[in-house]
Amino acid sequence: MVAKLPEEEHPKQAFGWAARDESGVLSPFDFSRRAIGEKDVCFKVLYCGMCHSDLHMVKNEWGTSTYPLVPGHEIVGVVTEVGSKVENFKVGDKVGVGTIAGSCHSCHNCTSNLENYCAEMILTYGAKYYDGTITYGGYSDIMVADEHFIIRIPDTLPLDSTAPLLCAGITVYSPLKYYGLDKPGMHVGIVGLGGLGHMAVKFAKVMGAAMGTMDGIIDTVSAMHPLAPLIGLLKTNGKLVLVGAPEKPLELAAFPLIMGRKIVGGSGTGGMKETQEMINFAAKHNITADVEVIPIEYVNIAMERMLKADVRYRFVIDIGNTIKSTY
Amino acid sequence: MVAKLPEEEHPKQAFGWAARDESGVLSPFDFSRRAIGEKDVCFKVLYCGMCHSDLHMVKNEWGTSTYPLVPGHEIVGVVTEVGSKVENFKVGDKVGVGTIAGSCHSCHNCTSNLENYCAEMILTYGAKYYDGTITYGGYSDIMVADEHFIIRIPDTLPLDSTAPLLCAGITVYSPLKYYGLDKPGMHVGIVGLGGLGHMAVKFAKVMGAAMGTMDGIIDTVSAMHPLAPLIGLLKTNGKLVLVGAPEKPLELAAFPLIMGRKIVGGSGTGGMKETQEMINFAAKHNITADVEVIPIEYVNIAMERMLKADVRYRFVIDIGNTIKSTY
Repeated sequence: MVAKLPEEEHPKQAFGWAARDESGVLSPFDFSRRAIGEKDVCFKVLYCGMCHSDLHMVKNEWGTSTYPLVPGHEIVGVVTEVGSKVENFKVGDKVGVGTIAGSCHSCHNCTSNLENYCAEMILTYGAKYYDGTITYGGYSDIMVADEHFIIRIPDTLPLDSTAPLLCAGITVYSPLKYYGLDKPGMHVGIVGLGGLGHMAVKFAKVMGAAMGTMDGIIDTVSAMHPLAPLIGLLKTNGKLVLVGAPEKPLELAAFPLIMGRKIVGGSGTGGMKETQEMINFAAKHNITADVEVIPIEYVNIAMERMLKADVRYRFVIDIGNTIKSTY
Repeated sequence: MVAKLPEEEHPKQAFGWAARDESGVLSPFDFSRRAIGEKDVCFKVLYCGMCHSDLHMVKNEWGTSTYPLVPGHEIVGVVTEVGSKVENFKVGDKVGVGTIAGSCHSCHNCTSNLENYCAEMILTYGAKYYDGTITYGGYSDIMVADEHFIIRIPDTLPLDSTAPLLCAGITVYSPLKYYGLDKPGMHVGIVGLGGLGHMAVKFAKVMGAAMGTMDGIIDTVSAMHPLAPLIGLLKTNGKLVLVGAPEKPLELAAFPLIMGRKIVGGSGTGGMKETQEMINFAAKHNITADVEVIPIEYVNIAMERMLKADVRYRFVIDIGNTIKSTY
């Protein structure tokens, strides 16, 4: 049996940009998406944020990539079609899809609104879907997803700068809540404005600023870096939360944890319920990402700039206006 | 100015066993203890547990020891004298002293009943007390301590097997409470029955037993050991709590923490309020340590056996019946 070509697997014609090999270079790509099932929603993609993990994935730096690979998991757009049993969305709604496209719906995590920790979680791109085909992300003109994994975007939020909330936003919102770092008056540090940020921590430490004064630190750095200076900034019961995953193990000294009952914890994105809560919270407080909107033709240069941390703070691809199908 | 001899520093004659140098060998030692202040309690020591940290300290393995060093911070006995403003104890009471002999009483930790995390905490032995003299531990005939750091021992508890609760007991009780691992039905693992324990974890892991099933693990091992197999045993939101401090940093991979929102935390002994709570809890549920009671003359052999983990599970020195003063 010969595997079907990507553009012949499914009935819905789709067009995006894909990496074809570990060079990571993206180029135009014809493929297809499934006909909508009873619970599926189809939407026209208008914007898609560029996450640093897209860069890891197009270059197969985590060893899990399959090609062609269409990245993108900060996807927003407008609903064009809904399945017969879809309850929460209708044509014309503004919606989004983040990092998760499927999960088992029956494990303890799923039934606790923690689909993000389901052992059978299906990622939005580069993963095997229930039907055995590979999922494709939001660097593409249309998206089809189960309504359980669709987020409603409130009308007051601009779509371009809201797209990054679907991964970057929820990934820091969730640990702030879970680790109790959301109380007024708390001192919370954020590590990971790039190479500069880690230097700032080192300078601040030797200057004596803020030593042992922080309730929590969200560490977004995915490069190798020492944890000891960060743990030193925490006060008793302080929490260092890792949301970036360096490739190799970090060094962890037990004594500083013991002497201040400190915690090093992890947190990975958020469940669907919490993601919707985060978006609503963002709308209420008028919080969006600082973005640089680019045309799809610029995507390879944007990848290079992202590698150098040369972006303040997120690239968002204007899919709606710049992606051009060849079909 | 010539420093006073240990036996001339204070008015109260005392006798114990001390290490004189990094050989760690203990031998009889004449010294003195302070006259009781208004808030001080003096008690005759009856039993003293031998903690693994005594072994580290007599050999100066943490680099902080001063000699002569009288170890012992699992000290129980009977009150013989109280200061004029002591409120909670009277002559004849059964009492104990654990790892802490002093703290600042004014910092946020102290006012939150967390004297154990006070930056100015004074350890029961080998530390500089307020008056500038060095503290001596419970391998000795009498003890003098501020009543704030005295624990009442309920009458139903046997003194010998209760002594180890004052360090070993509170050090595991406190994290079980703080990390929420004290709920019925929870699966909690304990690592650190010595070299065998860590092998049991490795075997259990490859046998598939208990993978991803634990709510929490209390890791008491102070030797270098891998954390990854322990983190793998935890379910989502699981907590690995380090109470033993290996000399060098351990390896910590961020990804397994992130994928299950897991925590590696530390915990160091407990505050005075919680220590009393722990002792009362032990009395209510009839919990004591499994001990091997030894005469003081056996202490050097006991140190050697402890190094080989050849004890089930704690040596306790029968101070009251076997220590013999030379004065």
